[in-house]
Amino acid sequence: MTRGRRMTRRRRKRYHPPGTVPGTLAAHAEAGDSPVRLKAFLYGPEQCEERLLSADDIPSLAPPKEGVLWLDVGGLSDPDVVRAVGARFGIHPLALEDVLNVPQRPKVERYDDHLLVVLREIRYPNPPEQVSLFLTDRVVVSFQECAGDSFDPIRERVRQKSGTIRSEGADYLLYALCDAVLDAFFPTLEQLGDKVEELEERVLVSPVPETFLAIRHLKRELLTVRRAVWPARDAMNLLLVDAHGLIRPGTKVFLRDCYDHTVQLMDMVETFREMASGLVDEYMSAVSNRMNEVMKVLTIVATFFIPLTFLVGIYGMNFDRNSPYNMPELGWAYGYPALLILMASVAGGMLYYFRKKRWL
Amino acid sequence: MTRGRRMTRRRRKRYHPPGTVPGTLAAHAEAGDSPVRLKAFLYGPEQCEERLLSADDIPSLAPPKEGVLWLDVGGLSDPDVVRAVGARFGIHPLALEDVLNVPQRPKVERYDDHLLVVLREIRYPNPPEQVSLFLTDRVVVSFQECAGDSFDPIRERVRQKSGTIRSEGADYLLYALCDAVLDAFFPTLEQLGDKVEELEERVLVSPVPETFLAIRHLKRELLTVRRAVWPARDAMNLLLVDAHGLIRPGTKVFLRDCYDHTVQLMDMVETFREMASGLVDEYMSAVSNRMNEVMKVLTIVATFFIPLTFLVGIYGMNFDRNSPYNMPELGWAYGYPALLILMASVAGGMLYYFRKKRWL
Amino acid sequence: MTRGRRMTRRRRKRYHPPGTVPGTLAAHAEAGDSPVRLKAFLYGPEQCEERLLSADDIPSLAPPKEGVLWLDVGGLSDPDVVRAVGARFGIHPLALEDVLNVPQRPKVERYDDHLLVVLREIRYPNPPEQVSLFLTDRVVVSFQECAGDSFDPIRERVRQKSGTIRSEGADYLLYALCDAVLDAFFPTLEQLGDKVEELEERVLVSPVPETFLAIRHLKRELLTVRRAVWPARDAMNLLLVDAHGLIRPGTKVFLRDCYDHTVQLMDMVETFREMASGLVDEYMSAVSNRMNEVMKVLTIVATFFIPLTFLVGIYGMNFDRNSPYNMPELGWAYGYPALLILMASVAGGMLYYFRKKRWL
Amino acid sequence: MTRGRRMTRRRRKRYHPPGTVPGTLAAHAEAGDSPVRLKAFLYGPEQCEERLLSADDIPSLAPPKEGVLWLDVGGLSDPDVVRAVGARFGIHPLALEDVLNVPQRPKVERYDDHLLVVLREIRYPNPPEQVSLFLTDRVVVSFQECAGDSFDPIRERVRQKSGTIRSEGADYLLYALCDAVLDAFFPTLEQLGDKVEELEERVLVSPVPETFLAIRHLKRELLTVRRAVWPARDAMNLLLVDAHGLIRPGTKVFLRDCYDHTVQLMDMVETFREMASGLVDEYMSAVSNRMNEVMKVLTIVATFFIPLTFLVGIYGMNFDRNSPYNMPELGWAYGYPALLILMASVAGGMLYYFRKKRWL
Amino acid sequence: MTRGRRMTRRRRKRYHPPGTVPGTLAAHAEAGDSPVRLKAFLYGPEQCEERLLSADDIPSLAPPKEGVLWLDVGGLSDPDVVRAVGARFGIHPLALEDVLNVPQRPKVERYDDHLLVVLREIRYPNPPEQVSLFLTDRVVVSFQECAGDSFDPIRERVRQKSGTIRSEGADYLLYALCDAVLDAFFPTLEQLGDKVEELEERVLVSPVPETFLAIRHLKRELLTVRRAVWPARDAMNLLLVDAHGLIRPGTKVFLRDCYDHTVQLMDMVETFREMASGLVDEYMSAVSNRMNEVMKVLTIVATFFIPLTFLVGIYGMNFDRNSPYNMPELGWAYGYPALLILMASVAGGMLYYFRKKRWL
Repeated sequence: MTRGRRMTRRRRKRYHPPGTVPGTLAAHAEAGDSPVRLKAFLYGPEQCEERLLSADDIPSLAPPKEGVLWLDVGGLSDPDVVRAVGARFGIHPLALEDVLNVPQRPKVERYDDHLLVVLREIRYPNPPEQVSLFLTDRVVVSFQECAGDSFDPIRERVRQKSGTIRSEGADYLLYALCDAVLDAFFPTLEQLGDKVEELEERVLVSPVPETFLAIRHLKRELLTVRRAVWPARDAMNLLLVDAHGLIRPGTKVFLRDCYDHTVQLMDMVETFREMASGLVDEYMSAVSNRMNEVMKVLTIVATFFIPLTFLVGIYGMNFDRNSPYNMPELGWAYGYPALLILMASVAGGMLYYFRKKRWL
Repeated sequence: MTRGRRMTRRRRKRYHPPGTVPGTLAAHAEAGDSPVRLKAFLYGPEQCEERLLSADDIPSLAPPKEGVLWLDVGGLSDPDVVRAVGARFGIHPLALEDVLNVPQRPKVERYDDHLLVVLREIRYPNPPEQVSLFLTDRVVVSFQECAGDSFDPIRERVRQKSGTIRSEGADYLLYALCDAVLDAFFPTLEQLGDKVEELEERVLVSPVPETFLAIRHLKRELLTVRRAVWPARDAMNLLLVDAHGLIRPGTKVFLRDCYDHTVQLMDMVETFREMASGLVDEYMSAVSNRMNEVMKVLTIVATFFIPLTFLVGIYGMNFDRNSPYNMPELGWAYGYPALLILMASVAGGMLYYFRKKRWL
Repeated sequence: MTRGRRMTRRRRKRYHPPGTVPGTLAAHAEAGDSPVRLKAFLYGPEQCEERLLSADDIPSLAPPKEGVLWLDVGGLSDPDVVRAVGARFGIHPLALEDVLNVPQRPKVERYDDHLLVVLREIRYPNPPEQVSLFLTDRVVVSFQECAGDSFDPIRERVRQKSGTIRSEGADYLLYALCDAVLDAFFPTLEQLGDKVEELEERVLVSPVPETFLAIRHLKRELLTVRRAVWPARDAMNLLLVDAHGLIRPGTKVFLRDCYDHTVQLMDMVETFREMASGLVDEYMSAVSNRMNEVMKVLTIVATFFIPLTFLVGIYGMNFDRNSPYNMPELGWAYGYPALLILMASVAGGMLYYFRKKRWL
Repeated sequence: MTRGRRMTRRRRKRYHPPGTVPGTLAAHAEAGDSPVRLKAFLYGPEQCEERLLSADDIPSLAPPKEGVLWLDVGGLSDPDVVRAVGARFGIHPLALEDVLNVPQRPKVERYDDHLLVVLREIRYPNPPEQVSLFLTDRVVVSFQECAGDSFDPIRERVRQKSGTIRSEGADYLLYALCDAVLDAFFPTLEQLGDKVEELEERVLVSPVPETFLAIRHLKRELLTVRRAVWPARDAMNLLLVDAHGLIRPGTKVFLRDCYDHTVQLMDMVETFREMASGLVDEYMSAVSNRMNEVMKVLTIVATFFIPLTFLVGIYGMNFDRNSPYNMPELGWAYGYPALLILMASVAGGMLYYFRKKRWL
Repeated sequence: MTRGRRMTRRRRKRYHPPGTVPGTLAAHAEAGDSPVRLKAFLYGPEQCEERLLSADDIPSLAPPKEGVLWLDVGGLSDPDVVRAVGARFGIHPLALEDVLNVPQRPKVERYDDHLLVVLREIRYPNPPEQVSLFLTDRVVVSFQECAGDSFDPIRERVRQKSGTIRSEGADYLLYALCDAVLDAFFPTLEQLGDKVEELEERVLVSPVPETFLAIRHLKRELLTVRRAVWPARDAMNLLLVDAHGLIRPGTKVFLRDCYDHTVQLMDMVETFREMASGLVDEYMSAVSNRMNEVMKVLTIVATFFIPLTFLVGIYGMNFDRNSPYNMPELGWAYGYPALLILMASVAGGMLYYFRKKRWL
């Protein structure tokens, strides 16, 4: 539960006080003290140079003449790093602000000569994390909230020259990073799908308040995923129709695949959401069924004994037996057995009536 | 039930681990060991040659100079076959990935010189199956998940030269295959419509939890069909407005008919869905009606006997009869009959009140 | 009820087995044996010739040099007639298929030199009926499911030269026929509106399950009308924006009026649907109000008598009266009246409490 | 109530029998016998001539060479007047039909050289009324259902030369009339808003069926307003984008203000509708809260006394006291006080339990 | 509560009586007597002149040759000021009317040479306030309902030359003012988000009517925010796509950031609204759970004691013990202990049954 809770915990947007100068870059409390991990990959079809940088190395970085430079920034605790990167590669201050003021809504923003892609990564059961990607001519800069391992397969592909990534341009790297972020949604959704199915069983077997809370929690998680996927779809579509020149037609075929994944994800999310909504109905129905069962037992027990108790009450009265009209039954030799038989008949009649009505 | 369950069972998307090189073709566990059935039809207005191929024959296939080549692949258990077909006909790796990573959302994707059509076939009570179709100049390649009989009527029409199929081009074959897939939805929806009507009866006659489960199951099935039909409609529309040149205007008239079928299917699905949603309301209403009936009986029985029991309790008290003020009724000669008459009057009064209030 | 039931009865779509050659024309079982009634009207501003035809006369029909030919086909039991008409006027096989495979969704389809308009006629309490209209240069062919009287006013206007119909072209005749079909919805919707109002009364006066069924039935009927009107609106709009040349601008003013009627019909249908949805809420509320009333009576009766019964129970106990501590009240001279007064006070107190709480 | 009822009373559309010749103008029963009031205003910047006309004067009216002619028709009881006006100013028969067949949906229709604007005026608590406005080059013809006072401020402004109306063209008069109709919605919506707030109080204080009926009635009224405003918005927008030439750019600035009012009205209507929907939930919740309170009292009273009654029942049994095992308590000197103490403890224990559970 | 109440209190639109001359400027009662605070900032890159004006100074103001003139009007109590400002800067009368007739829906209106931006500022817990901004070539006029401190950071930035505001044009000032208004929504939404979370706890712990009222109040507040943000988004978008020339491309980058903020705000509002809707369900579920618990106790207590009370009732009957068939158990030496054992068994059996059924 704790882990899921992290996933849906409401992120406090780190907003500046209203009226702040736009483009102000401020460290945010939550970012912690862990140092930022800076890596630079400079690669081409034939070679790949990988360097671990310190903040001081940033001004000396230059867009390469050939090949691709990937500046891989892990962690946002130091706004100076972000400022330095922005200054080096001419990134718009508003774009830098979006990197730091997490969480932003996933989006694509076009600036004069660069492109900002913001995505939200949900890798169950980790909390959502913002990934910001900048693309200029031969440079990709990626910012992650923490120096996570989401991009490790990409790093490995760049190092190992697996696939065609080393032969392609910066736009292909952008695609590969987007794809890595979006692919991570599939296992998350699988797990949520398993939860849906598990809850479908539980809702019938034990419609207790805990189950209702679990459904609510699941709906919250699906809402979180939806809020990450829905705008990501628009962002991917914007990259597709973009006539910016930064993305070559050959890469667009791959980005279409990304877009397709977001459509599939939306389809899954919406299906799960519809199923989860149905679960609330089913829970309510199961609760009221259980209630009905309880009520039926009360009805039957009460309805059985109330008339019988009335009968035995009659013969507990103290009317003066001297009058022959006052409860002569009490004087009969077989009065008691007769009453027992009468009560058995009444009980039997009610039993028959209840069965006929299908209440039993 | 088991069969319907197969239809709506959640398909596990076979996704690669995030970060995999795009275009990776991997066998998936569920595909089983059953060999792939490969057939090639080479036909023209006058002749039709049908061959059963092995995987090794694929490289030797060539697009025909005239007539149409239909490569009919049944089963996806061997990714090597898919790879070989892709290599032979120049199909994009991402397109091939879509063939293997079932289930894909129905869609049309355009590549440079070929077209991929993905549809989901729902042929009640079989589980949904993905059909992938490639169209190039004179070649159609069709992939089915298992070597099913959905395309048998088309195979027969090609063999028998029934209709105009042999005189038309590859685009007409694509249409015919799409049409076969989409036509199969009609009997499925008829059966679901029968279920809706059957449940409308059941919900009134026996509003038991099983009925609720059946409604839920029906809604799930309708959701499955909807997810297959809705994107198929978009796909057919895309084929219609496509200016790709692969589809001739004469064939578009037929594809418009396909499109029209998907619109009709959506109309049916949405109507059934609305009816099924109404069923939940009716179920709830029927349950609460039944509850009301039970409650009414409890009310009436309890309300009848509680005052009477109170009366007989009075005359069971042991007040000292020496005082003339202490329950003189007990000493009356007709005390008991008088009490019986009193109780009958009270009961009758309540009966009259209940009837007046229409509770009985 | 039976008549309304006919209106909403689910039409079984007469679909061919999947994979059938497109354009196959087959008789359908439901069409019955009643012969098809064939009429030809050949009219111009000055004359009107009306002929009753047999199926054999069709090949001899020819588009007139001047004036308008209206071929008025009543009944679909004989596919040969449809085939012959199609052959004579060069109608596309798929269009003919739509005529026979009723019910089609209302639509407009454009073919090279002719236009197909499919509408659904709902003339309460008759079952819905499909009307298919073909328009070519000087010819209108109309197909009705049964040789009904819906078109009688048009026939009369053609015969009597009432209005301008005889001076106008074939497109105006098409408009007049569409208008006749759409106008028939207004009385139907008036009747449904009356039903809504009647149910609004009933739902308050007698919230019994029959009322709920009637609401359900009404919603079903509104759904049926909606499914006929909604696509008819799109069809009329398509005729309006059509640049086909078959419809002259002067006639478009009239078609706009038709379109306007469909918009008004949709407005009425949606309003009635919203009102009908509100009826379900009101029904539920009325049921629970009634339930509350029943519960209140139970509460009050039980709450009244349970404490009193406890009191009389006390004085029915058999404690040994020799001890002065054991129920000395029984020995009091005014014990019984005192108890009666006590019980009256308790009852009065509860009565006051209930009234204060507004439960009574 | 009676007045509100008039506002929402379902208007019976006066439709012709289906198949009637289009453009047929018929008197309708509801129109009454009150004579039509005909007024003509001929004004320019410097003068204003106002004449009361009879039906016979219509043919002699002529579009003025300069200034504006406003023909102000109050009442629709005489179709001959409508016909005469139509003939004099060349209005299309279908447009005239719309004037008489009230209620039409608000709309703008363009004909060759004139424009028809239909609006619905809702001036609480009057019943809705249709206003039809025709605009040609220098002429505005306005039709009201009854010779009401809605246009009196405009008449006064024309007479008094207040504002710029006398200096502007016919299009400005059209705007002024539309604005007068739309402005009347604001006080109506204020009153509905007051009703919403009043019902919010009532729903909590007295959740009785009458309150539910009042909510239903309010929702009906909001629906009526919505149906008048929504299409009016579209109509105003159509006037704005219209390239007809009848409306000058300078007037469009004012029409944009009209459009803006309709958007504001929609915003108010939708907010009130959402609040009214919330009221139904609150009503249901209040009813079930009250029910809960009633149930709790029953529970507590019954649960209190049922065990106590059982205890006193025990000591009312008649077991043979000769055996020392048979109810020796009855023989104790302090038996009765001991039992009373026992019962008090039981009652106290239950009281404590109920309080702990917060049921009391 | 009182403060929140101010926030959602329904604003009475100050509308003129229907038919008033358009552009009439009238004081409104609510505006109070507090004098209007007029300030003029005339600034350029190098200097900033700030003057406090009286109403009489307005006619002497002139658009500057260089730099930017910001006329900062705080308070709307004096329509003469608004009229004078309008006259001085050639503002359209309809635009001035929008300034005074608060609340307007947020919007952007373009006039010949100036632009009107209307926004609603929600700065929790203050009541909503309208901000109207005019932009002409070198002049920005801002109207606030009361001379609040929302624009203080902007005033400070202008005075202190902090950021680039002094070097930019009037369009940038417009942006900065819009941004200040929109940024104020974030803390408001944070507080509403805290309320949502607080209510999530409360709904489970104490599902009392007060909690329901708090949810209703929260929904009302979210609706208020939504009505302010939704049209603001459209307004910002309109500024972005505007080809008016008043806004330079460089400023559009910043306005896109504003637009982005409105999209994020909508996203937050919609998420909170969905969560608040879920709260109603949860409240209902919690209430019915509590009800169930109460019912269960009643059932168990009643079902326990009703059969036992019947048993003790039997042995309170007064049948004539002379007959050996009449209740011989009463004569047994161990009759009473036997009955106690029997009753304990019955009670134990029921206890076992309830536990098995999981009702306990």
